[in-house]
Amino acid sequence: MNPIFERQSVRKFLDKEVSETQIENLLKAGMQAPSACNQQAWEFIVINDKKDMIEISEMHRFAKPAGEASKLIVVLGNLKEARLEYMIEQDLGACCENILLQATYEGLGAVWLGFHPIEDRCLKIRKYLNIPDYCIPFAVICVGYPAIDSDVKLRYDDVKVHYGRY
Amino acid sequence: MNPIFERQSVRKFLDKEVSETQIENLLKAGMQAPSACNQQAWEFIVINDKKDMIEISEMHRFAKPAGEASKLIVVLGNLKEARLEYMIEQDLGACCENILLQATYEGLGAVWLGFHPIEDRCLKIRKYLNIPDYCIPFAVICVGYPAIDSDVKLRYDDVKVHYGRY
Repeated sequence: MNPIFERQSVRKFLDKEVSETQIENLLKAGMQAPSACNQQAWEFIVINDKKDMIEISEMHRFAKPAGEASKLIVVLGNLKEARLEYMIEQDLGACCENILLQATYEGLGAVWLGFHPIEDRCLKIRKYLNIPDYCIPFAVICVGYPAIDSDVKLRYDDVKVHYGRY
Repeated sequence: MNPIFERQSVRKFLDKEVSETQIENLLKAGMQAPSACNQQAWEFIVINDKKDMIEISEMHRFAKPAGEASKLIVVLGNLKEARLEYMIEQDLGACCENILLQATYEGLGAVWLGFHPIEDRCLKIRKYLNIPDYCIPFAVICVGYPAIDSDVKLRYDDVKVHYGRY
């Protein structure tokens, strides 16, 4: 099974626990991403508590799935660890994608909720989770068993491919 | 085979052609990435010509593998297509990771060469490939058959994982 072509954003979840081992596999996948000069300037907060998940789900209008998921993974960028700070969004984008793909691989569903660089979203979650100044709250990944059927569309569009020159 | 845990940066390649079908599979994988509001503001230039590949390999000190690869995929962000321009690095990071993972899945090797947001690198490649002002030259992915053995280290580090709060 190639998770790249099976992955979809899952925003509705069954009332069924995701195990700690599964979350650990997702974190292992995230940390396996490439990063600029191999800086690996990522950290993670795992959220398990229903009250916290509901608070986070109310932080912005696209965050609703956080209230329904089994667990959340908050992905942070640690600017103290980043030698190439200007590459950190790229690194963390790859890291989040690995987490989503691993979720698919495990038979789970997930969705990536954007926070950074939207200031009011970042302020709210930073305060709520005691995230220090030197970390950016990059994204929240909601994880659970999918309550939707697979409906993946191939997005390939050959108009977007050039050969030799633009 | 789960490509997440098999992927490594490959900078040495065999003198063996990567097929057009394989490149198309890599592009399909790239375009299957999630993006903010599903904006899919990516475009690609496939480079096949040895002279072009050598020119690109000389554009910065980490770009050497481009001269040895079978083909290059230049990943661009189209700012005219981006509704959320400030999310484009994240989207393209996920897109590049999908390309690297698909390469692994196909038995190929690949490495991600950073360009954006380093100005002098971007200027050089923009000029050489006629990339318009509204596109950012995000990264170059070198693709070929690996001339190195697999040597993947698990990067998991539990110090980077917090529970409940930072």
